[in-house]
Amino acid sequence: MPKLWNETIEAHRRAVRDAILNTTAELAAERGVRSVTMSQIAEQAGIGRATLYKYFPDVEAILLAWHDRQITEHLAQLAEVRDQADGPGEQLEVVLRAFAHISRQSRGHHGTELAAFLHRDERVVRAQEQLHGMIRDLLAEGAQAGVFRADVAPDELATYCLHALTAAAALPSEAAADRLVTVTLSGLRDGHPMPEDQKPTSGHARHGHHSGHSAH
Amino acid sequence: MPKLWNETIEAHRRAVRDAILNTTAELAAERGVRSVTMSQIAEQAGIGRATLYKYFPDVEAILLAWHDRQITEHLAQLAEVRDQADGPGEQLEVVLRAFAHISRQSRGHHGTELAAFLHRDERVVRAQEQLHGMIRDLLAEGAQAGVFRADVAPDELATYCLHALTAAAALPSEAAADRLVTVTLSGLRDGHPMPEDQKPTSGHARHGHHSGHSAH
Repeated sequence: MPKLWNETIEAHRRAVRDAILNTTAELAAERGVRSVTMSQIAEQAGIGRATLYKYFPDVEAILLAWHDRQITEHLAQLAEVRDQADGPGEQLEVVLRAFAHISRQSRGHHGTELAAFLHRDERVVRAQEQLHGMIRDLLAEGAQAGVFRADVAPDELATYCLHALTAAAALPSEAAADRLVTVTLSGLRDGHPMPEDQKPTSGHARHGHHSGHSAH
Repeated sequence: MPKLWNETIEAHRRAVRDAILNTTAELAAERGVRSVTMSQIAEQAGIGRATLYKYFPDVEAILLAWHDRQITEHLAQLAEVRDQADGPGEQLEVVLRAFAHISRQSRGHHGTELAAFLHRDERVVRAQEQLHGMIRDLLAEGAQAGVFRADVAPDELATYCLHALTAAAALPSEAAADRLVTVTLSGLRDGHPMPEDQKPTSGHARHGHHSGHSAH
Protein backbone atom coordinates (compact mmCIF):
# COMPACT_ATOMS: atom_id res chain seq x y z
CA MET A 1 0.00 0.00 0.00
CA PRO A 2 1.27 3.51 -0.77
CA LYS A 3 2.22 5.74 2.16
CA LEU A 4 -0.68 8.12 1.58
CA TRP A 5 -3.21 5.34 2.11
CA ASN A 6 -1.52 4.38 5.40
CA GLU A 7 -1.79 7.95 6.57
CA THR A 8 -5.46 8.06 5.65
CA ILE A 9 -6.06 4.84 7.58
CA GLU A 10 -4.14 6.19 10.56
CA ALA A 11 -6.11 9.46 10.56
CA HIS A 12 -9.36 7.50 10.36
CA ARG A 13 -8.33 5.32 13.31
CA ARG A 14 -7.46 8.35 15.41
CA ALA A 15 -10.82 9.94 14.56
CA VAL A 16 -12.72 6.78 15.56
CA ARG A 17 -10.70 6.43 18.73
CA ASP A 18 -11.34 10.09 19.66
CA ALA A 19 -15.08 9.65 19.01
CA ILE A 20 -15.13 6.58 21.29
CA LEU A 21 -13.30 8.42 24.06
CA ASN A 22 -15.54 11.50 23.88
CA THR A 23 -18.75 9.48 23.76
CA THR A 24 -17.75 7.29 26.70
CA ALA A 25 -16.73 10.25 28.88
CA GLU A 26 -20.07 11.95 28.15
CA LEU A 27 -22.08 8.82 28.92
CA ALA A 28 -20.13 8.16 32.13
CA ALA A 29 -20.64 11.72 33.34
CA GLU A 30 -24.37 11.57 32.51
CA ARG A 31 -25.28 8.09 33.73
CA GLY A 32 -22.51 7.07 36.10
CA VAL A 33 -19.45 4.93 35.36
CA ARG A 34 -21.04 1.62 36.33
CA SER A 35 -24.12 1.89 34.14
CA VAL A 36 -22.34 2.58 30.83
CA THR A 37 -22.19 -0.43 28.47
CA MET A 38 -20.16 -1.17 25.35
CA SER A 39 -23.41 -1.36 23.33
CA GLN A 40 -24.44 2.16 24.39
CA ILE A 41 -21.02 3.50 23.46
CA ALA A 42 -21.08 1.86 20.01
CA GLU A 43 -24.59 3.16 19.30
CA GLN A 44 -23.86 6.70 20.51
CA ALA A 45 -20.53 6.86 18.63
CA GLY A 46 -22.20 5.58 15.45
CA ILE A 47 -20.03 2.48 15.01
CA GLY A 48 -20.69 -1.25 15.22
CA ARG A 49 -20.05 -3.21 18.44
CA ALA A 50 -17.53 -5.43 16.61
CA THR A 51 -15.59 -2.33 15.57
CA LEU A 52 -15.66 -0.96 19.12
CA TYR A 53 -14.17 -4.19 20.46
CA LYS A 54 -11.33 -3.91 17.93
CA TYR A 55 -10.34 -0.67 19.67
CA PHE A 56 -10.99 -1.42 23.35
CA PRO A 57 -11.75 -4.53 25.43
CA ASP A 58 -14.09 -2.83 27.94
CA VAL A 59 -15.50 0.44 29.32
CA GLU A 60 -12.78 0.75 31.95
CA ALA A 61 -10.05 0.64 29.29
CA ILE A 62 -11.82 3.39 27.34
CA LEU A 63 -12.13 5.63 30.38
CA LEU A 64 -8.48 5.19 31.24
CA ALA A 65 -7.50 6.02 27.64
CA TRP A 66 -9.78 9.08 27.73
CA HIS A 67 -8.23 10.20 31.00
CA ASP A 68 -4.74 9.65 29.65
CA ARG A 69 -5.58 11.93 26.72
CA GLN A 70 -7.03 14.57 29.07
CA ILE A 71 -3.95 14.55 31.27
CA THR A 72 -1.60 14.80 28.30
CA GLU A 73 -3.58 17.69 26.84
CA HIS A 74 -3.70 19.54 30.16
CA LEU A 75 0.03 19.23 30.76
CA ALA A 76 0.66 20.43 27.18
CA GLN A 77 -1.68 23.41 27.78
CA LEU A 78 0.20 24.34 30.96
CA ALA A 79 3.58 24.07 29.23
CA GLU A 80 2.25 26.22 26.39
CA VAL A 81 1.00 29.07 28.58
CA ARG A 82 4.27 28.91 30.48
CA ASP A 83 6.31 29.24 27.28
CA GLN A 84 4.22 32.17 26.06
CA ALA A 85 4.81 34.19 29.24
CA ASP A 86 7.94 36.09 30.12
CA GLY A 87 10.07 35.48 33.20
CA PRO A 88 9.41 33.07 36.12
CA GLY A 89 7.04 35.44 37.96
CA GLU A 90 4.64 35.87 35.08
CA GLN A 91 5.12 32.27 33.96
CA LEU A 92 4.15 30.82 37.32
CA GLU A 93 1.14 33.09 37.49
CA VAL A 94 -0.25 31.99 34.11
CA VAL A 95 0.45 28.32 34.87
CA LEU A 96 -1.38 28.51 38.24
CA ARG A 97 -4.32 30.38 36.70
CA ALA A 98 -4.62 27.83 33.91
CA PHE A 99 -4.38 24.96 36.40
CA ALA A 100 -7.09 26.44 38.64
CA HIS A 101 -9.45 26.67 35.65
CA ILE A 102 -8.65 23.15 34.46
CA SER A 103 -9.37 21.89 38.01
CA ARG A 104 -12.75 23.61 38.02
CA GLN A 105 -13.67 22.31 34.57
CA SER A 106 -12.61 18.77 35.42
CA ARG A 107 -14.77 18.84 38.52
CA GLY A 108 -17.74 19.80 36.32
CA HIS A 109 -17.14 17.03 33.79
CA HIS A 110 -16.40 14.18 36.07
CA GLY A 111 -19.03 13.78 38.71
CA THR A 112 -17.93 12.19 41.96
CA GLU A 113 -18.07 8.55 40.91
CA LEU A 114 -16.02 9.07 37.76
CA ALA A 115 -13.51 11.19 39.70
CA ALA A 116 -13.13 8.46 42.33
CA PHE A 117 -12.59 5.85 39.61
CA LEU A 118 -10.02 7.94 37.75
CA HIS A 119 -8.06 8.92 40.83
CA ARG A 120 -6.97 5.34 41.25
CA ASP A 121 -5.18 5.77 37.92
CA GLU A 122 -1.43 5.87 38.49
CA ARG A 123 -1.10 8.27 35.56
CA VAL A 124 -2.65 10.91 37.83
CA VAL A 125 0.23 10.46 40.24
CA ARG A 126 2.79 10.79 37.45
CA ALA A 127 1.04 13.87 36.02
CA GLN A 128 0.97 15.48 39.47
CA GLU A 129 4.69 14.82 39.78
CA GLN A 130 5.30 16.44 36.39
CA LEU A 131 3.21 19.47 37.32
CA HIS A 132 4.95 19.67 40.69
CA GLY A 133 8.29 19.66 38.86
CA MET A 134 7.18 22.41 36.46
CA ILE A 135 6.07 24.64 39.33
CA ARG A 136 9.13 23.88 41.45
CA ASP A 137 11.48 24.84 38.60
CA LEU A 138 9.70 28.19 38.06
CA LEU A 139 9.85 28.85 41.82
CA ALA A 140 13.57 28.07 41.93
CA GLU A 141 14.24 30.33 38.96
CA GLY A 142 12.05 33.06 40.49
CA ALA A 143 13.77 32.83 43.86
CA GLN A 144 17.12 33.32 42.12
CA ALA A 145 15.73 36.36 40.32
CA GLY A 146 14.29 37.78 43.58
CA VAL A 147 10.69 37.44 42.37
CA PHE A 148 9.70 34.68 44.82
CA ARG A 149 10.56 34.07 48.45
CA ALA A 150 13.82 32.26 49.06
CA ASP A 151 13.37 31.36 52.73
CA VAL A 152 11.45 28.16 51.92
CA ALA A 153 12.63 25.47 49.47
CA PRO A 154 10.99 25.55 45.99
CA ASP A 155 9.92 21.94 46.48
CA GLU A 156 7.90 22.80 49.61
CA LEU A 157 6.46 25.89 47.96
CA ALA A 158 5.31 23.76 45.01
CA THR A 159 3.53 21.42 47.45
CA TYR A 160 1.86 24.46 49.06
CA CYS A 161 0.73 25.77 45.64
CA LEU A 162 -0.80 22.56 44.43
CA HIS A 163 -2.68 21.96 47.68
CA ALA A 164 -3.90 25.55 47.94
CA LEU A 165 -5.24 25.37 44.39
CA THR A 166 -7.30 22.25 45.10
CA ALA A 167 -9.64 24.81 46.69
CA ALA A 168 -10.53 25.95 43.14
CA ALA A 169 -12.89 23.00 42.72
CA ALA A 170 -14.74 24.03 45.92
CA LEU A 171 -15.19 27.67 44.94
CA PRO A 172 -18.43 28.92 43.40
CA SER A 173 -17.10 30.88 40.39
CA GLU A 174 -14.23 31.42 38.00
CA ALA A 175 -13.73 34.86 39.55
CA ALA A 176 -13.33 33.26 43.00
CA ALA A 177 -10.80 30.83 41.52
CA ASP A 178 -8.86 33.78 40.12
CA ARG A 179 -8.80 35.45 43.54
CA LEU A 180 -7.58 32.15 45.01
CA VAL A 181 -4.64 32.18 42.60
CA THR A 182 -3.84 35.78 43.58
CA VAL A 183 -3.88 34.88 47.28
CA THR A 184 -1.77 31.76 46.67
CA LEU A 185 0.77 33.82 44.72
CA SER A 186 1.01 36.35 47.57
CA GLY A 187 2.15 33.51 49.81
CA LEU A 188 5.00 32.87 47.37
CA ARG A 189 6.17 36.45 47.14
CA ASP A 190 6.20 37.49 50.75
CA GLY A 191 8.83 36.44 53.25
CA HIS A 192 12.37 37.12 54.17
CA PRO A 193 14.57 38.19 51.29
CA MET A 194 17.28 35.99 49.90
CA PRO A 195 20.59 36.20 51.80
CA GLU A 196 22.92 38.79 50.22
CA ASP A 197 25.52 36.26 49.04
CA GLN A 198 22.90 34.28 47.07
CA LYS A 199 21.46 37.26 45.25
CA PRO A 200 21.96 37.42 41.50
CA THR A 201 24.18 40.32 40.54
CA SER A 202 22.83 40.89 37.03
CA GLY A 203 20.50 43.73 36.12
CA HIS A 204 17.64 41.24 35.89
CA ALA A 205 17.20 41.08 39.65
CA ARG A 206 13.90 42.60 40.67
CA HIS A 207 13.03 44.11 43.98
CA GLY A 208 10.11 41.85 44.72
CA HIS A 209 6.49 42.83 44.42
CA HIS A 210 6.15 45.26 47.30
CA SER A 211 7.16 48.26 45.24
CA GLY A 212 4.26 47.68 42.85
CA HIS A 213 0.95 48.12 44.58
CA SER A 214 1.69 48.36 48.30
CA ALA A 215 0.41 51.50 49.94
CA HIS A 216 2.29 51.01 53.21
CA MET B 1 -28.99 4.49 95.27
CA PRO B 2 -27.20 7.56 96.65
CA LYS B 3 -25.92 10.14 94.18
CA LEU B 4 -22.30 9.34 94.88
CA TRP B 5 -22.77 5.76 93.73
CA ASN B 6 -24.33 6.93 90.47
CA GLU B 7 -21.32 9.14 89.86
CA THR B 8 -18.96 6.27 90.51
CA ILE B 9 -20.89 4.10 88.07
CA GLU B 10 -20.84 6.87 85.50
CA ALA B 11 -17.09 7.42 85.88
CA HIS B 12 -16.53 3.68 85.55
CA ARG B 13 -18.63 3.55 82.37
CA ARG B 14 -16.69 6.43 80.84
CA ALA B 15 -13.40 4.74 81.68
CA VAL B 16 -14.52 1.45 80.08
CA ARG B 17 -15.83 3.29 77.03
CA ASP B 18 -12.55 5.21 76.64
CA ALA B 19 -10.55 2.00 76.96
CA ILE B 20 -12.68 0.38 74.24
CA LEU B 21 -12.22 3.35 71.91
CA ASN B 22 -8.45 3.53 72.41
CA THR B 23 -7.95 -0.21 72.00
CA THR B 24 -10.04 -0.36 68.82
CA ALA B 25 -8.26 2.58 67.21
CA GLU B 26 -4.90 0.98 67.97
CA LEU B 27 -5.93 -2.39 66.60
CA ALA B 28 -7.43 -0.83 63.46
CA ALA B 29 -4.29 1.18 62.79
CA GLU B 30 -2.09 -1.89 63.33
CA ARG B 31 -4.06 -4.59 61.55
CA GLY B 32 -6.44 -2.75 59.22
CA VAL B 33 -10.09 -1.87 59.82
CA ARG B 34 -11.51 -5.00 58.25
CA SER B 35 -9.51 -7.51 60.25
CA VAL B 36 -10.38 -6.22 63.73
CA THR B 37 -12.95 -8.35 65.60
CA MET B 38 -15.05 -7.72 68.68
CA SER B 39 -13.28 -10.64 70.43
CA GLN B 40 -9.86 -9.07 69.86
CA ILE B 41 -11.09 -5.76 71.21
CA ALA B 42 -12.57 -7.33 74.34
CA GLU B 43 -9.40 -9.29 75.00
CA GLN B 44 -7.06 -6.35 74.43
CA ALA B 45 -9.22 -3.99 76.53
CA GLY B 46 -9.35 -6.55 79.36
CA ILE B 47 -13.15 -6.90 79.45
CA GLY B 48 -15.58 -9.72 78.60
CA ARG B 49 -17.21 -9.96 75.19
CA ALA B 50 -20.67 -9.68 76.78
CA THR B 51 -19.62 -6.42 78.45
CA LEU B 52 -18.25 -5.07 75.16
CA TYR B 53 -21.58 -5.75 73.42
CA LYS B 54 -23.38 -3.79 76.17
CA TYR B 55 -21.41 -0.73 75.00
CA PHE B 56 -21.28 -1.15 71.21
CA PRO B 57 -23.01 -3.37 68.62
CA ASP B 58 -20.01 -3.71 66.25
CA VAL B 59 -16.51 -2.54 65.33
CA GLU B 60 -17.81 0.13 62.97
CA ALA B 61 -19.85 1.77 65.74
CA ILE B 62 -16.77 1.83 67.99
CA LEU B 63 -14.62 3.44 65.30
CA LEU B 64 -17.22 6.11 64.65
CA ALA B 65 -17.49 6.84 68.38
CA TRP B 66 -13.69 7.03 68.60
CA HIS B 67 -13.58 9.40 65.65
CA ASP B 68 -16.32 11.53 67.15
CA ARG B 69 -14.25 11.87 70.32
CA GLN B 70 -11.12 12.76 68.31
CA ILE B 71 -12.96 15.44 66.33
CA THR B 72 -14.48 16.95 69.46
CA GLU B 73 -11.09 17.01 71.20
CA HIS B 74 -9.36 18.57 68.20
CA LEU B 75 -11.94 21.34 67.82
CA ALA B 76 -11.68 22.02 71.56
CA GLN B 77 -7.87 22.19 71.28
CA LEU B 78 -8.13 24.68 68.43
CA ALA B 79 -10.62 26.84 70.33
CA GLU B 80 -8.34 26.74 73.36
CA VAL B 81 -5.19 27.90 71.55
CA ARG B 82 -7.28 30.60 69.89
CA ASP B 83 -8.55 31.86 73.24
CA GLN B 84 -5.08 31.92 74.76
CA ALA B 85 -3.68 34.11 71.97
CA ASP B 86 -4.16 37.84 71.63
CA GLY B 87 -5.77 39.54 68.63
CA PRO B 88 -6.96 37.98 65.35
CA GLY B 89 -3.51 37.94 63.71
CA GLU B 90 -1.86 35.93 66.46
CA GLN B 91 -5.01 33.89 67.05
CA LEU B 92 -5.24 32.74 63.44
CA GLU B 93 -1.56 31.89 63.41
CA VAL B 94 -1.76 29.62 66.47
CA VAL B 95 -4.96 27.97 65.20
CA LEU B 96 -3.39 27.21 61.79
CA ARG B 97 -0.19 25.90 63.39
CA ALA B 98 -2.15 23.65 65.72
CA PHE B 99 -4.33 22.43 62.85
CA ALA B 100 -1.30 21.62 60.67
CA HIS B 101 0.18 19.52 63.49
CA ILE B 102 -3.10 17.73 64.18
CA SER B 103 -3.36 16.93 60.45
CA ARG B 104 0.11 15.43 60.45
CA GLN B 105 -0.53 13.38 63.59
CA SER B 106 -3.87 12.10 62.29
CA ARG B 107 -2.22 10.96 59.12
CA GLY B 108 0.27 8.99 61.20
CA HIS B 109 -2.40 7.33 63.35
CA HIS B 110 -4.91 6.42 60.73
CA GLY B 111 -3.34 4.57 57.88
CA THR B 112 -5.02 4.90 54.51
CA GLU B 113 -7.77 2.32 54.98
CA LEU B 114 -8.94 3.74 58.30
CA ALA B 115 -8.80 7.28 56.89
CA ALA B 116 -10.93 6.25 53.89
CA PHE B 117 -13.47 4.63 56.22
CA LEU B 118 -13.65 7.63 58.54
CA HIS B 119 -13.93 10.21 55.79
CA ARG B 120 -17.33 8.85 54.88
CA ASP B 121 -18.38 10.02 58.36
CA GLU B 122 -20.67 13.04 58.06
CA ARG B 123 -19.25 14.35 61.34
CA VAL B 124 -16.07 15.15 59.42
CA VAL B 125 -18.08 17.44 57.16
CA ARG B 126 -19.68 19.20 60.14
CA ALA B 127 -16.31 19.56 61.90
CA GLN B 128 -14.78 21.04 58.75
CA GLU B 129 -17.64 23.53 58.61
CA GLN B 130 -17.04 24.48 62.23
CA LEU B 131 -13.32 24.93 61.62
CA HIS B 132 -14.04 26.90 58.46
CA GLY B 133 -16.30 29.18 60.50
CA MET B 134 -13.68 29.68 63.21
CA ILE B 135 -11.04 30.65 60.64
CA ARG B 136 -13.44 32.84 58.65
CA ASP B 137 -14.39 34.80 61.79
CA LEU B 138 -10.75 35.46 62.69
CA LEU B 139 -10.06 36.57 59.12
CA ALA B 140 -13.04 38.94 59.15
CA GLU B 141 -11.95 40.42 62.46
CA GLY B 142 -8.36 40.67 61.23
CA ALA B 143 -9.39 42.38 57.98
CA GLN B 144 -11.29 44.98 60.02
CA ALA B 145 -8.20 45.54 62.16
CA GLY B 146 -5.96 45.83 59.07
CA VAL B 147 -4.00 42.68 59.95
CA PHE B 148 -5.30 40.58 57.04
CA ARG B 149 -6.05 41.41 53.43
CA ALA B 150 -9.47 42.87 52.78
CA ASP B 151 -9.62 42.52 48.99
CA VAL B 152 -10.88 38.92 49.16
CA ALA B 153 -13.86 37.76 51.25
CA PRO B 154 -13.02 36.02 54.56
CA ASP B 155 -15.06 33.01 53.44
CA GLU B 156 -12.88 32.49 50.35
CA LEU B 157 -9.71 33.08 52.36
CA ALA B 158 -10.82 30.41 54.85
CA THR B 159 -11.29 27.94 51.96
CA TYR B 160 -7.79 28.83 50.73
CA CYS B 161 -6.31 28.28 54.23
CA LEU B 162 -7.86 24.90 54.80
CA HIS B 163 -6.88 23.58 51.38
CA ALA B 164 -3.34 24.94 51.59
CA LEU B 165 -2.89 23.26 54.97
CA THR B 166 -3.89 19.83 53.64
CA ALA B 167 -0.31 19.90 52.30
CA ALA B 168 0.86 19.40 55.91
CA ALA B 169 0.10 15.68 55.70
CA ALA B 170 2.28 15.39 52.57
CA LEU B 171 5.30 17.19 54.07
CA PRO B 172 8.19 15.22 55.53
CA SER B 173 8.62 17.01 58.89
CA GLU B 174 7.03 19.20 61.55
CA ALA B 175 9.46 21.96 60.59
CA ALA B 176 8.24 21.80 56.99
CA ALA B 177 4.64 21.98 58.24
CA ASP B 178 5.57 25.10 60.21
CA ARG B 179 7.04 26.72 57.10
CA LEU B 180 3.85 25.82 55.22
CA VAL B 181 1.81 27.71 57.81
CA THR B 182 4.13 30.72 57.46
CA VAL B 183 3.73 30.70 53.67
CA THR B 184 -0.04 30.27 53.95
CA LEU B 185 -0.24 33.21 56.36
CA SER B 186 1.75 35.40 53.95
CA GLY B 187 -0.99 34.84 51.39
CA LEU B 188 -3.49 36.24 53.91
CA ARG B 189 -1.49 39.33 54.78
CA ASP B 190 -0.42 40.56 51.39
CA GLY B 191 -2.69 42.27 48.94
CA HIS B 192 -4.35 45.58 48.44
CA PRO B 193 -5.07 47.48 51.62
CA MET B 194 -8.57 48.02 52.88
CA PRO B 195 -10.32 51.03 51.33
CA GLU B 196 -9.80 54.15 53.47
CA ASP B 197 -13.46 54.49 54.46
CA GLN B 198 -13.54 50.92 55.85
CA LYS B 199 -10.43 51.30 57.97
CA PRO B 200 -10.87 51.17 61.73
CA THR B 201 -10.00 54.49 63.34
CA SER B 202 -8.97 53.19 66.78
CA GLY B 203 -5.37 52.95 67.94
CA HIS B 204 -5.52 49.18 67.50
CA ALA B 205 -5.17 49.43 63.74
CA ARG B 206 -1.87 47.99 62.63
CA HIS B 207 -0.01 48.86 59.47
CA GLY B 208 0.11 45.36 58.08
CA HIS B 209 3.11 43.09 58.19
CA HIS B 210 5.44 44.83 55.79
CA SER B 211 6.92 47.07 58.42
CA GLY B 212 8.15 44.06 60.41
CA HIS B 213 10.72 42.10 58.52
CA SER B 214 10.68 43.38 55.00
CA ALA B 215 14.02 44.61 53.73
CA HIS B 216 12.62 46.24 50.60
